[in-house]
Amino acid sequence: MYRIIREDGLWLLKDNEKEPFNPTKIVCVGLNYKAHAKELNMALPDEPLLFLKPTSALILNEEYIIYPKSSKRVDYEGELAIVIGKTCKKVSYKDAKDVILGFSIGNDVTARDLQKKDIQFTRSKSFDTFCPVGPIVVKDIDPSNLNIKTYVNKELKQQGNTSDMIFDVYEIVSFISSIMTLNKHDIILTGTPPGIGPLNISNEVKIEIDSIGVLTNYIKEDVEG
Amino acid sequence: MYRIIREDGLWLLKDNEKEPFNPTKIVCVGLNYKAHAKELNMALPDEPLLFLKPTSALILNEEYIIYPKSSKRVDYEGELAIVIGKTCKKVSYKDAKDVILGFSIGNDVTARDLQKKDIQFTRSKSFDTFCPVGPIVVKDIDPSNLNIKTYVNKELKQQGNTSDMIFDVYEIVSFISSIMTLNKHDIILTGTPPGIGPLNISNEVKIEIDSIGVLTNYIKEDVEG
Repeated sequence: MYRIIREDGLWLLKDNEKEPFNPTKIVCVGLNYKAHAKELNMALPDEPLLFLKPTSALILNEEYIIYPKSSKRVDYEGELAIVIGKTCKKVSYKDAKDVILGFSIGNDVTARDLQKKDIQFTRSKSFDTFCPVGPIVVKDIDPSNLNIKTYVNKELKQQGNTSDMIFDVYEIVSFISSIMTLNKHDIILTGTPPGIGPLNISNEVKIEIDSIGVLTNYIKEDVEG
Repeated sequence: MYRIIREDGLWLLKDNEKEPFNPTKIVCVGLNYKAHAKELNMALPDEPLLFLKPTSALILNEEYIIYPKSSKRVDYEGELAIVIGKTCKKVSYKDAKDVILGFSIGNDVTARDLQKKDIQFTRSKSFDTFCPVGPIVVKDIDPSNLNIKTYVNKELKQQGNTSDMIFDVYEIVSFISSIMTLNKHDIILTGTPPGIGPLNISNEVKIEIDSIGVLTNYIKEDVEG
């Protein structure tokens, strides 16, 4: 088990020792829970639908999500996160387990109004602070049957189980690595269960995943102008 | 003027000395030439349309673009590239010039069939080798009136001038930095002029931009399976 921390501006993975934590990309899967696809009246995809978030969007547990002035609707999306353990490419389904360092919790924060306007997901999901990840990375858990719950101000908003994923974590790693080299510490967000909804300034958002823990963040307004 | 090179697996910018070249992201603008929007019968966007390519897609001048087995239509897209000179956020139009290290040439290689299937651009533009950039980064040029030409096997395919951009380079830097922090060496591809079309295995593709030079790459099949 590692804790994701930052010291003197450097991101670190800490267990008994500390090592630099340097994800080079964040790859995300859209529409990966059957119940979420149903909620949106969307057909189930036949291949994982990919998009990217920039690493400049990363924040830690207990840090603030900044509500951009250019959006009027910012949503939480609680997700199981995969952290890659070594550089790899074209990984088979059966070898995927060996390239995974561990599992964590991610929040794919999304400016829903800008997502609708742009069609492309990039702007809406790329604001600074729009990718909370952590607080820990857990090894040696079975990712196939984990409850995920998202709470806003302690009220349960989102509920699902990874057994409802259309593409499981090993299919996702294998698929992404068939396209692009995955580097050590790259992060994959595996899709969100049903129940997406808005965040407001001063809210607390908590995402809880069995066997991993709780990722907590707070929302504040953009005072930088 | 810097040359983008790689030595012992490390990317470097070389002038009189060498320094590590570490882009943390590649941000791209879609549909940024009036004549290209017209060619596609698309309305002119009122804001830059953004998408990301992963840095794992980068290759150098004279290297090979690998044609993926999962696509039957891979296109060139010749583009003016901006290389950022220092970490910055919320840069005004008038300050944008000061955060630019220089200008280079990029090829936003795209698996057109997968782009149409996914709607999201990510998979189609994220294959390893799908982002040739270089060979040099030029400072102190006026980016507002540069001819861009793309040749496949010496035949002129794509022709435009940066004066036809809907959003100029400073508007682009200001807009992107209003969303996400730009880090030193981050790369921005500023959109492609009209004339997009396919590449085939064994082709040579050359992109020429006034005052910068020529970026040359070759296409080969994926023999890794």
